[in-house]
Amino acid sequence: MDSERLDKLFDFFREIDKEKLITRQTYITDCARKETDAEHAWHAALMCIMLAGYSNDEIDVLKTVTMLLIHDIVEIDAGDTYAYDSEGQKTQREREEKAADRIFGMLPGEDGNFLRTLWEEFEQSETAEAKFARVMDYLQPLMLNDLTGGRAWREHGVHLSQVLKRNEKTCEGSEKLWEYAYENLIRPNAEKGNLKTDQINEQ
Amino acid sequence: MDSERLDKLFDFFREIDKEKLITRQTYITDCARKETDAEHAWHAALMCIMLAGYSNDEIDVLKTVTMLLIHDIVEIDAGDTYAYDSEGQKTQREREEKAADRIFGMLPGEDGNFLRTLWEEFEQSETAEAKFARVMDYLQPLMLNDLTGGRAWREHGVHLSQVLKRNEKTCEGSEKLWEYAYENLIRPNAEKGNLKTDQINEQ
Repeated sequence: MDSERLDKLFDFFREIDKEKLITRQTYITDCARKETDAEHAWHAALMCIMLAGYSNDEIDVLKTVTMLLIHDIVEIDAGDTYAYDSEGQKTQREREEKAADRIFGMLPGEDGNFLRTLWEEFEQSETAEAKFARVMDYLQPLMLNDLTGGRAWREHGVHLSQVLKRNEKTCEGSEKLWEYAYENLIRPNAEKGNLKTDQINEQ
Repeated sequence: MDSERLDKLFDFFREIDKEKLITRQTYITDCARKETDAEHAWHAALMCIMLAGYSNDEIDVLKTVTMLLIHDIVEIDAGDTYAYDSEGQKTQREREEKAADRIFGMLPGEDGNFLRTLWEEFEQSETAEAKFARVMDYLQPLMLNDLTGGRAWREHGVHLSQVLKRNEKTCEGSEKLWEYAYENLIRPNAEKGNLKTDQINEQ
């Protein structure tokens, strides 16, 4: 019985190894290459532990870290949808829900429900934990974009207004970190031209 | 004052991005490539959350997960020492201690002490958390070696006796998981010849 549970858990652990095959748009140190989903999740989870004290509301850190460790597992099936890809975003939710059903569905009942529910909570961004996890999810690539001279932003012609729009709720998770990110990671890149500041021509 | 703390924290977060540049010997799914330290830490941390109930002793899961997220940061300076590289292991401790001093030393006092102490606790493998973190650290590559037809083991001519020696204390963290790992991940690979079973000629 217990060995059945372990078999299913290990099937899931083997399946999620594929998260290492999903490449994001963000470059790592020295622009050596783009990072993988698994690396992003590791980085954001550790940042969460060290920055938890800056959450507006008190959070359950383990719960928030768990959210961050699993938040991109759905991309094994659904692929990475770039933050500023408005076409991809139209079908993102549908693709990711289907993926969540399949992948978390590999787990034994309770384990599967635990992660599926946590993923949904992250997606809804309503609880203190989900809001702070979202701050980490957005802050980590902001930091790497700044570190790599805004390369991914420049390659995709990203506008300051898009970064601000994406982060419009970041202050709901952490006013302090939003202020810090704006002053240190965003504004200087707009000034250097790594983020476009002219009007976007919406089609 | 607070912004000084954040500056140091972010310097550390930028520095540890280099963990993504450290490649281990373990292959990922389909032998696509070898995994990075950051990916290994992510995988082991998530396994820890799902498997914590199998620890012999009750553990503080967040503490154990934090250990796993940081346990290989020292390899940014010290490099990855392969599990079965007996030459490299002679200088491993010295190289890693120096790295811990430098890298955790980048953090503000309390934050630096917190992670430095936690890393040392992991290294000593004496507390329940450190023992269970070690189980995850060893179990994750066992699982990937099994998944990839023992490729890393075959490339390095690893003997069953070396795997058993390395894991001689795994049962101290989790008897259940050691039994499961031996039956499902180790023994079948010895039978298939992915692990050598003949005598090692020690020089």
